[in-house]
Amino acid sequence: MADRGHDPRQPRWVLEFSEGDRTQRDLLGGKGANLAEMTRLGLPVPPGFIVTTEACRSFHAYGGEVPPGMWEQVDAALANLEKDVGRTFGDPYDPLLVSVRSGAPVSMPGMMDTVLNLGLTDSTLRGLARSTGDSRFAYDSYRRLIQMFGSVVLGVDEEAYEDELTAARERAGVRTDAELDVDALRTLIDRFQQVTEHHAGQRLPQDPRQQLRQAAEAVFNSWNLPRAQHYRKLHGVSEDLCTAVNVQAMVFGNFGEDSATGVAFTRDPATGEPHAYGDWLPQAQGEDVVAGIRATRDLSELADEMPSVDRELKAALELLERHERDLCDVEFTIERGRLFILQTRRGKRSAQAAVRIAVDLVNEGVISEREALERVDPNQFEQLLHPQFAPHAQYEVLTRGLNASPGAAVGRAALTADEAARRAEEGEDVILVRPETSPDDIHGMSASKGILTSRGGLVSHAAVVARGMGIPAICGAEEVVVDRSAGTLTIAGEVIEEGELLSIDGTSGAVVRGEVELSEPELGGAADQLLEWADQHRVLQVIANADLAEDAASARAWGAEGIGLCRTEHMFMGERLPLVQRAILAADAEAERRALDELAPYQRGDFVELLEAMDGLPVTIRLLDPPLHEFLPDVTDLRVAEAKGELSDDDRTLLEAAERWEEANPMLGVRGCRLGLLRPPLYRMQVRAITEAAVERRKAGGDPRPKIMLPLIATAAELEQLRGEVAEEMAAVLAEQDVEVTIPIGTMIETPRAALAAQSVGAHADFFSFGTNDLTQLTFGFSRDDVEGRMMSTYLEQGLLPVNPFAEIDAEGVGRLIEIAVVEGRRGNAQLEISICGEHGGDPASIARSHEWGLNAVSCSPPRVPVARLAAARAAVSAEVRNPDT
Amino acid sequence: MADRGHDPRQPRWVLEFSEGDRTQRDLLGGKGANLAEMTRLGLPVPPGFIVTTEACRSFHAYGGEVPPGMWEQVDAALANLEKDVGRTFGDPYDPLLVSVRSGAPVSMPGMMDTVLNLGLTDSTLRGLARSTGDSRFAYDSYRRLIQMFGSVVLGVDEEAYEDELTAARERAGVRTDAELDVDALRTLIDRFQQVTEHHAGQRLPQDPRQQLRQAAEAVFNSWNLPRAQHYRKLHGVSEDLCTAVNVQAMVFGNFGEDSATGVAFTRDPATGEPHAYGDWLPQAQGEDVVAGIRATRDLSELADEMPSVDRELKAALELLERHERDLCDVEFTIERGRLFILQTRRGKRSAQAAVRIAVDLVNEGVISEREALERVDPNQFEQLLHPQFAPHAQYEVLTRGLNASPGAAVGRAALTADEAARRAEEGEDVILVRPETSPDDIHGMSASKGILTSRGGLVSHAAVVARGMGIPAICGAEEVVVDRSAGTLTIAGEVIEEGELLSIDGTSGAVVRGEVELSEPELGGAADQLLEWADQHRVLQVIANADLAEDAASARAWGAEGIGLCRTEHMFMGERLPLVQRAILAADAEAERRALDELAPYQRGDFVELLEAMDGLPVTIRLLDPPLHEFLPDVTDLRVAEAKGELSDDDRTLLEAAERWEEANPMLGVRGCRLGLLRPPLYRMQVRAITEAAVERRKAGGDPRPKIMLPLIATAAELEQLRGEVAEEMAAVLAEQDVEVTIPIGTMIETPRAALAAQSVGAHADFFSFGTNDLTQLTFGFSRDDVEGRMMSTYLEQGLLPVNPFAEIDAEGVGRLIEIAVVEGRRGNAQLEISICGEHGGDPASIARSHEWGLNAVSCSPPRVPVARLAAARAAVSAEVRNPDT
Repeated sequence: MADRGHDPRQPRWVLEFSEGDRTQRDLLGGKGANLAEMTRLGLPVPPGFIVTTEACRSFHAYGGEVPPGMWEQVDAALANLEKDVGRTFGDPYDPLLVSVRSGAPVSMPGMMDTVLNLGLTDSTLRGLARSTGDSRFAYDSYRRLIQMFGSVVLGVDEEAYEDELTAARERAGVRTDAELDVDALRTLIDRFQQVTEHHAGQRLPQDPRQQLRQAAEAVFNSWNLPRAQHYRKLHGVSEDLCTAVNVQAMVFGNFGEDSATGVAFTRDPATGEPHAYGDWLPQAQGEDVVAGIRATRDLSELADEMPSVDRELKAALELLERHERDLCDVEFTIERGRLFILQTRRGKRSAQAAVRIAVDLVNEGVISEREALERVDPNQFEQLLHPQFAPHAQYEVLTRGLNASPGAAVGRAALTADEAARRAEEGEDVILVRPETSPDDIHGMSASKGILTSRGGLVSHAAVVARGMGIPAICGAEEVVVDRSAGTLTIAGEVIEEGELLSIDGTSGAVVRGEVELSEPELGGAADQLLEWADQHRVLQVIANADLAEDAASARAWGAEGIGLCRTEHMFMGERLPLVQRAILAADAEAERRALDELAPYQRGDFVELLEAMDGLPVTIRLLDPPLHEFLPDVTDLRVAEAKGELSDDDRTLLEAAERWEEANPMLGVRGCRLGLLRPPLYRMQVRAITEAAVERRKAGGDPRPKIMLPLIATAAELEQLRGEVAEEMAAVLAEQDVEVTIPIGTMIETPRAALAAQSVGAHADFFSFGTNDLTQLTFGFSRDDVEGRMMSTYLEQGLLPVNPFAEIDAEGVGRLIEIAVVEGRRGNAQLEISICGEHGGDPASIARSHEWGLNAVSCSPPRVPVARLAAARAAVSAEVRNPDT
Repeated sequence: MADRGHDPRQPRWVLEFSEGDRTQRDLLGGKGANLAEMTRLGLPVPPGFIVTTEACRSFHAYGGEVPPGMWEQVDAALANLEKDVGRTFGDPYDPLLVSVRSGAPVSMPGMMDTVLNLGLTDSTLRGLARSTGDSRFAYDSYRRLIQMFGSVVLGVDEEAYEDELTAARERAGVRTDAELDVDALRTLIDRFQQVTEHHAGQRLPQDPRQQLRQAAEAVFNSWNLPRAQHYRKLHGVSEDLCTAVNVQAMVFGNFGEDSATGVAFTRDPATGEPHAYGDWLPQAQGEDVVAGIRATRDLSELADEMPSVDRELKAALELLERHERDLCDVEFTIERGRLFILQTRRGKRSAQAAVRIAVDLVNEGVISEREALERVDPNQFEQLLHPQFAPHAQYEVLTRGLNASPGAAVGRAALTADEAARRAEEGEDVILVRPETSPDDIHGMSASKGILTSRGGLVSHAAVVARGMGIPAICGAEEVVVDRSAGTLTIAGEVIEEGELLSIDGTSGAVVRGEVELSEPELGGAADQLLEWADQHRVLQVIANADLAEDAASARAWGAEGIGLCRTEHMFMGERLPLVQRAILAADAEAERRALDELAPYQRGDFVELLEAMDGLPVTIRLLDPPLHEFLPDVTDLRVAEAKGELSDDDRTLLEAAERWEEANPMLGVRGCRLGLLRPPLYRMQVRAITEAAVERRKAGGDPRPKIMLPLIATAAELEQLRGEVAEEMAAVLAEQDVEVTIPIGTMIETPRAALAAQSVGAHADFFSFGTNDLTQLTFGFSRDDVEGRMMSTYLEQGLLPVNPFAEIDAEGVGRLIEIAVVEGRRGNAQLEISICGEHGGDPASIARSHEWGLNAVSCSPPRVPVARLAAARAAVSAEVRNPDT
């Protein structure tokens, strides 16, 4: 590219569009690099130039002084621009107007907005009116410049201009700004100048070059606006990147019949269908297309109106998509029959379109399978798996809670699990609304279309169970107050009767009164194709957390390759609870054994069904984990009943037991393997039931593959002792039978100590599974129940945490423990199989880390399995890109 | 040493006493090496030989076969022994008798017991009777041999012999075995032989060599007895050490007037006074001295009876003490006027004696100061600091609990804190007996002589507070049941009225009904001397955990060099509680500020007193740590009152607040710095109070050195933000004043995450203090409150934990986190000061580790300070021994 008059002895602070390309993002910013690239491709981009990020860096390094020679280079570039356009900056007869925009190397909110129409002054204004033959347009452009320059460059409160606009409309007796005539605008311009002077101590400069210089320095200064600094800190963007300044000749789509403006996509961004798609408006400026004041026209109609422009635009779109190898979103303007491309970027798209486009581009030979996998965000992909609020549905959000389980649902409010079950029985769709849920509510939860709680976080009981069942849920919606006695709930002050219709969107956390139209999920051919590629490329196995045979079947249908976590405590509820209580209350070993003997057939039955549903695939069964008092009634409730004289003898026995087993901090109490060590018969019963179930399945011709997992291990000695007992019990069962079943024995790693002692623990384990919920709780000292609702939002807002560590694994603390445990666990046992089965097992960022750590598998809730398959594949593909030899 | 007939082509499986010395512990075992050493010194040791540990190792390596040539070497050594003694093994006229004892390189219970009198058979029995002229002695020796050989070597149940003995006594109509005559013994010998044959399938071999061989193999086999294996596993003793077998000629102290047996110490083991001390009995065998059947005689009387033997013994004692450079405990026998030394070892001694002897030995030029420091166990040293049950007091232990705070106390039982305070007011000594204690009980605790709780572990509220106050306490005594309504307590089934006398020993955990005589502590000149040396040699600073000025004064008197932890929450109780509650309940920021403004003067006053008491020394003040609901009433109590219709309006407000702030796991909830971040005015008030107190003290001419410590940090961002707020508030106060005060700002490291992120956290800290109580809780996932009482004893008994990790730092998990945090914290800030302020700060083993980790200080409860000074010195001294160049 020829140097157009640059002095080679000076550093280049300014590059013209024709001098750069898209590889120069760091120097030119994202927007500038794109404009340069389009210019290089020969597309009709209005000419312009870029003041580089280097200039901005120097500006900040020298206390807000632009580098020597910069303004001279700007003037030289401006002179070239005048030549290219054939107009002169400040020409009172036919002035060149320019726009000034910021543009950092990474897209970043909080930077300076655009200033359009720079170059207009009291004197050039008349020239513009004359040359365009449209006085109203010229005056309106001028008042916009004063307004934008005042607010954006001089920092005048936008409110001040809006007040004047309102007054002007009132004076003119019109409803919209567009109805203000030239006289009204002329008055308004005076008022705007006064407002500007009053608030900023200066008016819009009447020297166009001064306008340009002030605007450029304002862009530089906007790099250090608090909002931008905060964003950079939160997202780890380097302070050194700095921003470029884009100066571009203005073009106008409102010069009569043969002018227009519009937005075009290279493919349909809603469906992904492979044809150009967009909106345009004749005789309009850019913002009119999105303002919704005039009805836009479909892009397909452009061919009839301006066939040659349409051909040129289609060619440009095709060129851009081939060049970008992806869906492009283009802003264009037609000025007097001439097409200009103002901007291009990768097009935002719906989940459905993302998948379709990625797969089509592979089939068209444009991108590779690997690239297709990288093109679809797993979190977005998940939208395809659940109903959503229909895209065009209108509704008012009453309140928001935590997006605890994705998908949308509509149903009648039920305030108790029993009521939810009853209504569902009668064929109603139900939304269960509770302060929080407990294992007692399972029957009501599974009968509901959606769950809404006022307390609890992303790993509360309600959230975990809902995700496991694939039911939409919102948790911790603090503005929801349930009044069971009145049979009502109050949401943000509105009183709602039980039985009224509610709509909830578990993907966004929105709660709506009444019915919102839903769109049903479609996992079409393209999504299946993408998942097939994902399975070919991923290294991590994807297994599921499932407790019941029906969950296991659903997991298998979603593509799970086994069960990574079956929580047996869910088998201790309902009709079995009295037996469990008898075992807890047992006065002696004999009574305990009798109660456990009665429980055993239930357990065995559960396991037989589970092993059948997952025949041929591993089923990891965790022995009982929660503290015993979870199986006993609430102490406070019983004490209140006692105070009222309403306590039966049985209740009194339960109260004594509940008080005996009450714990100050049950999460840190006698649970998990500690219970197994203190009350060995319980675990032995479970081991016997698992082994007998495996034998039964084997005899029935099946291929049962149970694994036994011991929870909450802190020391190698615990695992060694329990492993011995488990093996002894298994051997006892198998000795009675004539079949061989091998059942690996492993442990959860969920205490920091187990991770730190992974080498000695690993020596006694066939497998590890990271219980990242507990591990996160203990590493931070955060109780999910207590901290998430009360503290997490404040912490995230204040940047005290970059992400919710219960949603995405905390790399610095928890991740470091995992790394230690992986490396040292395999030192203890080179064959150790390692997986992750906390809530993080379904989180794409955590799955990417799991791949890097060299885990064997991730285990997540069944409906999350496809997301995990995709995320695992992306992790493998991007690792390949980073380490091409491995 | 001449080889007495050993074949040089064979390995040496057997060494005679005269061939070894004390450096050969690994080969000869501890007992054998001592016997060899004494022989080498020319002391009159009955001759004998040792089958080496190497032989035992070979025995086990080859499946229980003695190594080839071993028996031949035993026979050769036996021949030499016969020559030395002048008797022959198996000689029917004057038989040589020997003892066989096990002896491993480390002292270890659970190994095989001694077998005496080997060599007696039906035929040599008569020779012994003749040669000694004492048939009863000979028969009694024989029945003992059969009994010992049967039970120890052949594994016959001891019970079987005892039954026969009982029957024999009944037949003879006598009360003790000693009264059985020769005929009775002859019959008994027959029955013993039958019993042996019946149970073991063989009789005592009539070939003396066969007896010896079987006994030696039994010693080898006893290495693998379950009890021995368990001990080795628990104490980390290598399986490869194996045991030696000691074979020694028998000598008898019951051969008439000029025979005797006794035990002698080189100094008084109770007082440490520098003169020989012991007991002896004429005409007696070893076990008679300790059996207590006959009154023993004081060693000083031996000089009158047998002056030359006495001179020889004194010379031997002197020689041994000089040689061992420590108090020795010697077993001796006088056979027909001839002195034999049977065994020597380092003498057990009282705490007082340990200190006196160590200091005297330095003054006598025998050992160095360093050695003196290593001679006194800090845990034993602590006994000198507290009253104890008097050494000779007689009492019956009703029950035992955890030894939560050392020292003994006697007082009248009080079942509530108020009652304890009332009785103390009236001049009574009180023992406060509670299920557990809470901050509400402080006034009653400080008024009591001792504290006894039925629940809670070594770091329960009661334990921590009692140790801090230096009050004896026993916690978690599960057999203690308090019935407040009846005004009684039940201990192990005995009903005791409030006001009855109880005695407790917090050092041992013993609870006694009635009054036990106490011995008062004396920290005499020797102890002061030892502590002076300790201060010269230690590297670690010793500081104290103290919340109040009086605790600080006491800590200073014990030698503390500052305060490592002042818990400000104790300043929020009592008359201030309503103000705290008002701040919590405040409807808006203004009301909160008003309540805090009223609290501020109290806080400032506390800090002024504290800084005055520790003038010139650092005072580390931790900002508020516990969850807010600790300052609110119990929810269940209020709900019960509500059910009874007894809830006032104020109570209802408190109930609502208590329910709002109730947490499922308060230990993991909104507390510590989280509270400071959610409710900034609270911490700001505290910071202001501290800074103003420092200013006041400075103006009064003092040298205040406060440090501000932020609790429960998990991320660097938390510390960064809080540090900013603290610094801002300090600067605001100082700007109003005309003095300069520098207040370092640091953090507790008590979450695993803070340790793992120590580098980034350290960059914002002037100091770290490990809160090892919380750190241990989180690393293990153990709640002190819940786990210690219910689980810890089982865990310790079953070897699932080697020590209680709340008493001694767990090296594998918690210790590793500390190591990481020390190294990486100093990477973040090279000047970082690091200390430890959990309960472990006063534990000698943990102090030794703290020295190794390179910490700057340990902080413990004030009465523990002297122990910590000694422990720190020992850590430094033993580190010097290991690393002589540093």
